[in-house]
Amino acid sequence: MYRLTLVLFLAGVVLGEYDPTWDSLDTRPLPPWYDGAKVGIMICWGLYSVPSFGSEWFWNYWQSGHNPPYVDFMNKNYRPNFTYQDFAPQFTAEFYDPLEWASLFNASGARYTVFVTKHHEGYTMWPSKYSWNWNTMDVGPKRDLVGDLAKAMRSTTPNVHFGVYHSLYEWYNPLYLQDKSNKFMTNDFVTRKTIPELHELVNNYQPEVIWSDGDWEAPDWYWNSTLFLAWLFNDSPVKDTVVVNGRWGIGIPCHHGSFYNCKDRYNPGVLQPHKWENAMTLDKLSWGYRRHAPATDYLTIHDLLTQLAQTISCGGNLLVNVGPTHDGRIPPIMEERLRQLGSWLNINGDAVYDSTPWTHQNDSVTPGVWYTSRAGVVYGLVLTWPKENIVSLGSVVSTPESRITMLGYHSDYNSYLEFTTLEKGTEVKFPPMSEVGSQWVWVLAMTHVNPSSLPGTPSPQV
Amino acid sequence: MYRLTLVLFLAGVVLGEYDPTWDSLDTRPLPPWYDGAKVGIMICWGLYSVPSFGSEWFWNYWQSGHNPPYVDFMNKNYRPNFTYQDFAPQFTAEFYDPLEWASLFNASGARYTVFVTKHHEGYTMWPSKYSWNWNTMDVGPKRDLVGDLAKAMRSTTPNVHFGVYHSLYEWYNPLYLQDKSNKFMTNDFVTRKTIPELHELVNNYQPEVIWSDGDWEAPDWYWNSTLFLAWLFNDSPVKDTVVVNGRWGIGIPCHHGSFYNCKDRYNPGVLQPHKWENAMTLDKLSWGYRRHAPATDYLTIHDLLTQLAQTISCGGNLLVNVGPTHDGRIPPIMEERLRQLGSWLNINGDAVYDSTPWTHQNDSVTPGVWYTSRAGVVYGLVLTWPKENIVSLGSVVSTPESRITMLGYHSDYNSYLEFTTLEKGTEVKFPPMSEVGSQWVWVLAMTHVNPSSLPGTPSPQV
Amino acid sequence: MYRLTLVLFLAGVVLGEYDPTWDSLDTRPLPPWYDGAKVGIMICWGLYSVPSFGSEWFWNYWQSGHNPPYVDFMNKNYRPNFTYQDFAPQFTAEFYDPLEWASLFNASGARYTVFVTKHHEGYTMWPSKYSWNWNTMDVGPKRDLVGDLAKAMRSTTPNVHFGVYHSLYEWYNPLYLQDKSNKFMTNDFVTRKTIPELHELVNNYQPEVIWSDGDWEAPDWYWNSTLFLAWLFNDSPVKDTVVVNGRWGIGIPCHHGSFYNCKDRYNPGVLQPHKWENAMTLDKLSWGYRRHAPATDYLTIHDLLTQLAQTISCGGNLLVNVGPTHDGRIPPIMEERLRQLGSWLNINGDAVYDSTPWTHQNDSVTPGVWYTSRAGVVYGLVLTWPKENIVSLGSVVSTPESRITMLGYHSDYNSYLEFTTLEKGTEVKFPPMSEVGSQWVWVLAMTHVNPSSLPGTPSPQV
Amino acid sequence: MYRLTLVLFLAGVVLGEYDPTWDSLDTRPLPPWYDGAKVGIMICWGLYSVPSFGSEWFWNYWQSGHNPPYVDFMNKNYRPNFTYQDFAPQFTAEFYDPLEWASLFNASGARYTVFVTKHHEGYTMWPSKYSWNWNTMDVGPKRDLVGDLAKAMRSTTPNVHFGVYHSLYEWYNPLYLQDKSNKFMTNDFVTRKTIPELHELVNNYQPEVIWSDGDWEAPDWYWNSTLFLAWLFNDSPVKDTVVVNGRWGIGIPCHHGSFYNCKDRYNPGVLQPHKWENAMTLDKLSWGYRRHAPATDYLTIHDLLTQLAQTISCGGNLLVNVGPTHDGRIPPIMEERLRQLGSWLNINGDAVYDSTPWTHQNDSVTPGVWYTSRAGVVYGLVLTWPKENIVSLGSVVSTPESRITMLGYHSDYNSYLEFTTLEKGTEVKFPPMSEVGSQWVWVLAMTHVNPSSLPGTPSPQV
Repeated sequence: MYRLTLVLFLAGVVLGEYDPTWDSLDTRPLPPWYDGAKVGIMICWGLYSVPSFGSEWFWNYWQSGHNPPYVDFMNKNYRPNFTYQDFAPQFTAEFYDPLEWASLFNASGARYTVFVTKHHEGYTMWPSKYSWNWNTMDVGPKRDLVGDLAKAMRSTTPNVHFGVYHSLYEWYNPLYLQDKSNKFMTNDFVTRKTIPELHELVNNYQPEVIWSDGDWEAPDWYWNSTLFLAWLFNDSPVKDTVVVNGRWGIGIPCHHGSFYNCKDRYNPGVLQPHKWENAMTLDKLSWGYRRHAPATDYLTIHDLLTQLAQTISCGGNLLVNVGPTHDGRIPPIMEERLRQLGSWLNINGDAVYDSTPWTHQNDSVTPGVWYTSRAGVVYGLVLTWPKENIVSLGSVVSTPESRITMLGYHSDYNSYLEFTTLEKGTEVKFPPMSEVGSQWVWVLAMTHVNPSSLPGTPSPQV
Repeated sequence: MYRLTLVLFLAGVVLGEYDPTWDSLDTRPLPPWYDGAKVGIMICWGLYSVPSFGSEWFWNYWQSGHNPPYVDFMNKNYRPNFTYQDFAPQFTAEFYDPLEWASLFNASGARYTVFVTKHHEGYTMWPSKYSWNWNTMDVGPKRDLVGDLAKAMRSTTPNVHFGVYHSLYEWYNPLYLQDKSNKFMTNDFVTRKTIPELHELVNNYQPEVIWSDGDWEAPDWYWNSTLFLAWLFNDSPVKDTVVVNGRWGIGIPCHHGSFYNCKDRYNPGVLQPHKWENAMTLDKLSWGYRRHAPATDYLTIHDLLTQLAQTISCGGNLLVNVGPTHDGRIPPIMEERLRQLGSWLNINGDAVYDSTPWTHQNDSVTPGVWYTSRAGVVYGLVLTWPKENIVSLGSVVSTPESRITMLGYHSDYNSYLEFTTLEKGTEVKFPPMSEVGSQWVWVLAMTHVNPSSLPGTPSPQV
Repeated sequence: MYRLTLVLFLAGVVLGEYDPTWDSLDTRPLPPWYDGAKVGIMICWGLYSVPSFGSEWFWNYWQSGHNPPYVDFMNKNYRPNFTYQDFAPQFTAEFYDPLEWASLFNASGARYTVFVTKHHEGYTMWPSKYSWNWNTMDVGPKRDLVGDLAKAMRSTTPNVHFGVYHSLYEWYNPLYLQDKSNKFMTNDFVTRKTIPELHELVNNYQPEVIWSDGDWEAPDWYWNSTLFLAWLFNDSPVKDTVVVNGRWGIGIPCHHGSFYNCKDRYNPGVLQPHKWENAMTLDKLSWGYRRHAPATDYLTIHDLLTQLAQTISCGGNLLVNVGPTHDGRIPPIMEERLRQLGSWLNINGDAVYDSTPWTHQNDSVTPGVWYTSRAGVVYGLVLTWPKENIVSLGSVVSTPESRITMLGYHSDYNSYLEFTTLEKGTEVKFPPMSEVGSQWVWVLAMTHVNPSSLPGTPSPQV
Repeated sequence: MYRLTLVLFLAGVVLGEYDPTWDSLDTRPLPPWYDGAKVGIMICWGLYSVPSFGSEWFWNYWQSGHNPPYVDFMNKNYRPNFTYQDFAPQFTAEFYDPLEWASLFNASGARYTVFVTKHHEGYTMWPSKYSWNWNTMDVGPKRDLVGDLAKAMRSTTPNVHFGVYHSLYEWYNPLYLQDKSNKFMTNDFVTRKTIPELHELVNNYQPEVIWSDGDWEAPDWYWNSTLFLAWLFNDSPVKDTVVVNGRWGIGIPCHHGSFYNCKDRYNPGVLQPHKWENAMTLDKLSWGYRRHAPATDYLTIHDLLTQLAQTISCGGNLLVNVGPTHDGRIPPIMEERLRQLGSWLNINGDAVYDSTPWTHQNDSVTPGVWYTSRAGVVYGLVLTWPKENIVSLGSVVSTPESRITMLGYHSDYNSYLEFTTLEKGTEVKFPPMSEVGSQWVWVLAMTHVNPSSLPGTPSPQV
């Protein structure tokens, strides 16, 4: 028995492509689907969707005690001694229709989803055997929320990749708190809960994104991160296609991972040397659903497209977060934004999917013009319709062979736009607005143009 | 004492302007504020906002038993023997903020509200002493929902008139059912419930609209309608300004009342000889909030403005219904529509408030153009931006003195639009769309123009 | 029309046996079943059985605000704004089994029941059409609690008479409060609620006891009491057998009525000139169920039999109250007392049913001995087993023909007890305790004995 | 490292008194307090106390699906998809008063308690860090039910020992189910849940009884039983006084343990060679509270004393189970039984506490007479008062020096009872029943008597 094990162990070392070290893991190339996808949707759903007040950090903000709105909300509306756990039976999800969700995500033009399978509350959205009586099958919806969506997406929208968010730490798990009080010199929580759970997720649902979170209180060696990732990249059922972010322990984010989420809502505004993702949320103030959010707290479609333009120009993907309700709906105001995004991408997708950053990210003369390129075409995404219908591009040098069109503009005779080659750039005349498909953010598609040698303007406030 | 009373009584008879007969009541002129207001908001809120499933007729549709979706919904989500009354404690209204509502209604550009104070369920949204334990003070919100809004509106948005909806009948009130089984030869229900309640409403809250409903099973003499109206017009605290619709008994609607709501969502599409109101709802399928309504079930702002244009052109007011949630919110998708309406009215209000129908209601040549007039100006509300920027108006005859502008268009030099006087009408050239304030439905303001003598096109499908 | 009505009115006066005056009503003889029955059971059940805390006056004690235990109980265990009405959906009665109750009441030896059909809270335990949404069919149990028990008793225990308790006033009914604020010069509440309800009760359920209550704030002319009673005695379906107590308005109790309940738990301890009833409750501190009552708060069977002996000796009936739970059970500790009472009556019923008071009510020499008589037999109910087995009776003069036995004692040879005729009474020797059926309160049955001419001892503290 | 471990392991072997083997553990003497205590109280309280229907096995009986009463109860009273876990928030315990409980247990005459800290449902009645969100602090009562009672007892009733019941297995714990499906060749459940939990219980609450249960599906080596017990007896804070039963794995019960509970409610009726305990319950049909139990389902005090007499005569302890309610009360019918037991023990305790079995357990001539002895006195517990007041004892041989009294009998002159020495035993004359303190089960205290050499009668049906 002893020998056999040794042989297998050695075999494992030999066969596995990646070692459990960052040096080795970092050599893995980014699976190409992810960079081409450009747009993903995050779904932030959990027990906090029951109070749906303030934030998905509800439990923590309330329990910390010095957050008056949370404390007042509970005092005013619930009986004394009501605990966060008491919300669980009210997480009913009776309107949850994964096929409808899949259809909506597809209609939004997104190419992947990141479903929050467990937030810092520790409640798992699938029937984890490591989270007994604290998961969606045992209390609340009485169904496998993760599995049901994975199945619906795979069967009806196969071109939208299924991914998961997973929090390493859990605010109030006593095993975690004990490890923490031991200064992380024990890791019972990791070996009994986190890692078994991650294996369960991967083996059961084959997610192609693992969006890790909650790593910041402990180092990667506490979380057993590299060991897990080596397994994920060598042996897991998704080893060839999975991507991960970089939240795997203190000091790891922005240094390792398939792509970086350097900070929440981080949008650097300049080109990045490593693949990154701009995770942002339609409700400007929360990721989880807030019942009391007025319409004005939601991004407009213009805001959203602005984020998209800035992000992809600088090499990022845009991850658009929605917060479903306790009864399983995506609120109509969010649905409408996603459909607007989809209608825009339907016209302008050529400038987005599979694009790469161009020489310049944004224009040196006119603010609010962002560039991408694909297959020899340079795309200029113009956030605001220009005064007098003339936009002046400082970063694009046109030539006699240049051809400039606007996506979604097809006049009867000739869809090329007039332009003038200037000393330091190009002036493009926009078509009549009434003849254009897009209602917001217009895309110029330019061929046979060259980048200006001048530097761009400083990045706008993003 | 006896004599004094007698004298007062005789005096009352002498002094009262109106007899309790339709002939007399019909002589009362329409208080002018109502015709000028043009836009109102109805708020359909009650216990049905708790299940918020299907319709505000939830109770009836469910209890009738042959509405599978309702029966299934209850069977699937509630314990056996759960009754409609059991929803009452869940009507929490914890986010109800009347000042915020008032502010929103005002921002929408509406000039009056019609708050549903009691629907056919019989549950009163104020603490009626005639509806003990079946009102918002005794069960559910524990507050006077009607009074709180009336007070908020009067103190912060005095130019928006406060009105009420009130259902005469109650599906399941045993007193009503007994009168009904007596073929309405008794009216205990009316004398003990309906009429005392109406007096209570008027005396407590001074509503300037009474939007009666639920009249259709019994004649006006059962409801004591004319007696009530005579009191309302002669002696009530709102006798000078109150308006009522016509739902006061079988055969009365469309024949009597300050204004007519001939049928739900009725939009005749042609000029009406009597003041009327187009009551319609943002959720195309329900007046009460439906949790499961997707974004696509809501009217777009284009749909809403189309309704507005058609309605005011034909002499009607538009009553836009919203359905708040059980916890007291106006859903963001509805809020957004109201704010869009308000932003449009902010630009185009001149064509709406205090306007009157013009000679023609809609254009004889170009569909989707509707007319109003005010102070010598003829307004053409153009629903769709014309191809090639040229609209051809068959009903407007221009003259050399004519001046045509577009509301919300202010070019630097000259905001008059070019136009051509044709043999049978006028051709107007639109300005560049990008220079115009409105995003939807553009209004031409025309002076010194004459109506064509040709008849209009048949009314479009509305 | 006027004449016809007058004739009918006169006819009514001629045909009815009783006028609506106390003078006339008082002439009605007591239906004989009631005096013979001696033992009844009151069932105090309502919404207060949901909190089942403190008292059936829970609502009032809590709302008055200066009852700390009630206020604290609510503050500690319920959310803010929880109202008494919110208890209604929790009144589930899922274990309510009227057949089982009927069987238990019968086993207790009781001969009538008084079911609380509506307490001061106003919530009716039957589907009254005058109490919409505030009755057991609309909210809570979803069944006719009154009718189901009436039916069960009539079909299975026909010798136990069915009766009802009914409260005239309702603490918080706004109609009542309005009449009250009018100093009872209006009686809308009575004509619209109380009297219709009483007719409904009588017509639907034919109760043979009407145990009125809640009369004390207003005079009988406010309550229309005599009018109702005249109908009850002349024309109702129970006119021949029904009995009523005297709580029909200020000044009426103890002066009118088939029997008197002069005060709650009133036990005068001396012979009464008019039929009376001792209403008392097994839980010494409450009529409604109290969850927090320890066993020591319940009367022991000895306490209960003591009450019975004192009561029937003085001409009263004993009405034993039980308080069922919100889920429809009679708590085992109460059930056990009723069964103990039944087992005792099974042995000693001859001294109880159809008995009449004797010349003396209690003994002049030995405290705790109470007398009844029936068919020439004098019964001495001895509360405590005498020391040395000898009881000395000062009120009984024995003769050579006297025969004295003990109920439930049957020795093999001779069941007569030895006795000695004293100068001023009789000494009776008790049999061995181990040979006697009763465990508590022993009954001597004496024939051919005479009453002493000496007065009795002062009544014991009762 | 390897060597050090070995040394420590050897040191452990040397220092600890007991090895983790049954041979070694069985050498531990029974802590003497336990045998002298004779009477304990088990408190069977958990989430099953919320439905309080059928049995503490509610979850299992319901989920197995072929128990119609359970399935029907749920279908009739709860919404579809209601799970057992949904009962947790309803476990309110608002009336739980540990001081009151301690006082009652003391008043009952019991000398130890066995509190159910975790039944097969897995829900811990203390805030275990190994049962996150499935314990009384996180959901339900929001307090440490175990700790609060331990503290109350230690501070107010120090002579009543505090003990705990603990279930090894958990019906639906996925870790257990996985071990089970692995045929117990893994024991993740034991190392992560059961054993850590047991240590937590012992270290936090210092119980002096550990009443193990739920062992029957797996062998002791799966449960790590001997290892735990070696720690318990060698190193735990209760190592000197703790006692355990024998339910530690297949084949262990009745063969190992401080005392035996061979089967539930096991009462062998004959003398046992090893200390044993008769665990039985006041509700004949359930250990957990059943709301629907009628009074007749409870043991009478006669039944209970019969159990006591039989048990202690044969060397056992009696463990009397009570089932508290979801709101923290011990139902009055149970409280009354405990108080009756206490009043009996108050008189007759000399025959119970610190007694030992006598030569004979029950009488050879008269059924229903059971013997104990203490300090040279032989006690005969007579279950039924003898006919003619004479009891004939076949197992007791009296002598001229014999003195026989009855506990609780103190006549004025002489409390010795008359007796006659027969050829084969002794006839004792009972005093007048009315002079005796006990109401049930009378105890003869006999000195200078000898056992008959004849064998006893066959054991009665017990």
